[in-house]
Amino acid sequence: MNIFYFKNIKINNIIIFDKEEYKHIIALRINKYDSIYLTDGTGNLYKGYVSDFSFKKVYIYVDKHIKNCKPKYTINIGISIIKNMSRFRWFLEKSTEIGVNNITPIITDYTQLKTINNIDKYNKILISAIKQSNQTFKPHINNVVKYQDFIDQAFNDQIKNNQFNYIAHNKSIENSYLSDTYQKNSSVLIVIGPEGGFTDKEYLYAIKKKFLGIKICNNILRTETSGIAVLLELLLINR
Amino acid sequence: MNIFYFKNIKINNIIIFDKEEYKHIIALRINKYDSIYLTDGTGNLYKGYVSDFSFKKVYIYVDKHIKNCKPKYTINIGISIIKNMSRFRWFLEKSTEIGVNNITPIITDYTQLKTINNIDKYNKILISAIKQSNQTFKPHINNVVKYQDFIDQAFNDQIKNNQFNYIAHNKSIENSYLSDTYQKNSSVLIVIGPEGGFTDKEYLYAIKKKFLGIKICNNILRTETSGIAVLLELLLINR
Repeated sequence: MNIFYFKNIKINNIIIFDKEEYKHIIALRINKYDSIYLTDGTGNLYKGYVSDFSFKKVYIYVDKHIKNCKPKYTINIGISIIKNMSRFRWFLEKSTEIGVNNITPIITDYTQLKTINNIDKYNKILISAIKQSNQTFKPHINNVVKYQDFIDQAFNDQIKNNQFNYIAHNKSIENSYLSDTYQKNSSVLIVIGPEGGFTDKEYLYAIKKKFLGIKICNNILRTETSGIAVLLELLLINR
Repeated sequence: MNIFYFKNIKINNIIIFDKEEYKHIIALRINKYDSIYLTDGTGNLYKGYVSDFSFKKVYIYVDKHIKNCKPKYTINIGISIIKNMSRFRWFLEKSTEIGVNNITPIITDYTQLKTINNIDKYNKILISAIKQSNQTFKPHINNVVKYQDFIDQAFNDQIKNNQFNYIAHNKSIENSYLSDTYQKNSSVLIVIGPEGGFTDKEYLYAIKKKFLGIKICNNILRTETSGIAVLLELLLINR
């Protein structure tokens, strides 16, 4: 089963694929009247069929809404901007495969790169990853925010969303793991620091805002690897 | 603490760094007589100091063998060759960070690329990853082998090394997870298939050779992500 992505899908309407999606249809040798699955990235799964081909375009008639899989909980990650953008792109792909709902690039004291230009362009990576892994949910990449603003927002969301808030910190005084406190199928937010970690001041700020300090492992992991490790730990607990 | 890598280290001898390692020393602003740590990638940790600089070279006098950390168990992975070599390079880096001892690229029925040229060149990635994560063990990349030969060898090693042998397979009849059977701090070998997985024949061949079938998760993961996921699961169990 292959799932195609289109932003706005309406029943009994025609969708036109060109460029990448057109090439993908051709590569998969999908013919006229063949059925395909579609998602709008918000959990909806649709069925449609190829109604026509024209010059470098393919027309899809959407005839059925199959289901909407509303997630029972959300997984949110705030991660320091990574200087090497190929590592950030890799993180986006892998976190989407493994499962994440919201990704927020953050600026901390030790974050070297302070901005990400044109964040929307990274949506392409997410779309490609949800197609690859047959998912109907496209994670949301938020705009870059400052560390303290991210923590403040998470503090407010904690009660509203009944969510666990964690800060990954190798010098964590609690020295506990996520699995010690996290309850299966609960919403969660984790914040991951840059190379060099969080400053003591940053760490204490999060603790004051009711974050739980967690350690991922004894190994020294790069920022993007830490992010993937913690998302994978959640996947294993919730599988 | 920064660890530098050099293949043959002897006490009371001088090592000469040039090229990459020289640049690294300069970048870290290490001066004459400053101490540095060294490893030969076999678990040995040495201490030395910068005895001199000359034109694009730095001389390190090795004065102390600090320790040898012999691993209590080994982690071995056989993974289908990945067509996209940047994904393979990425797998090498991340598996080294997370922890692996032997990596064997294998050829299965659905493996698209049948060979890897000049496998030694990938050692650079491993060395860079052990330095980054302050490890003293450099994983070993074996030459490419055929699936059945890999399984046969693992079958022989199973008793000799008292090791758990697993095959990751989404259609695994056992439908069990690695954590259901794996015992903490034991040697382990896992085989990961290509996109499209193993054929039924391949899967049954491994089962006949006493492999345990395991499922990683419900998500559809790429080959390299599956490999990382299973290594991370081991890291979390053994932490």
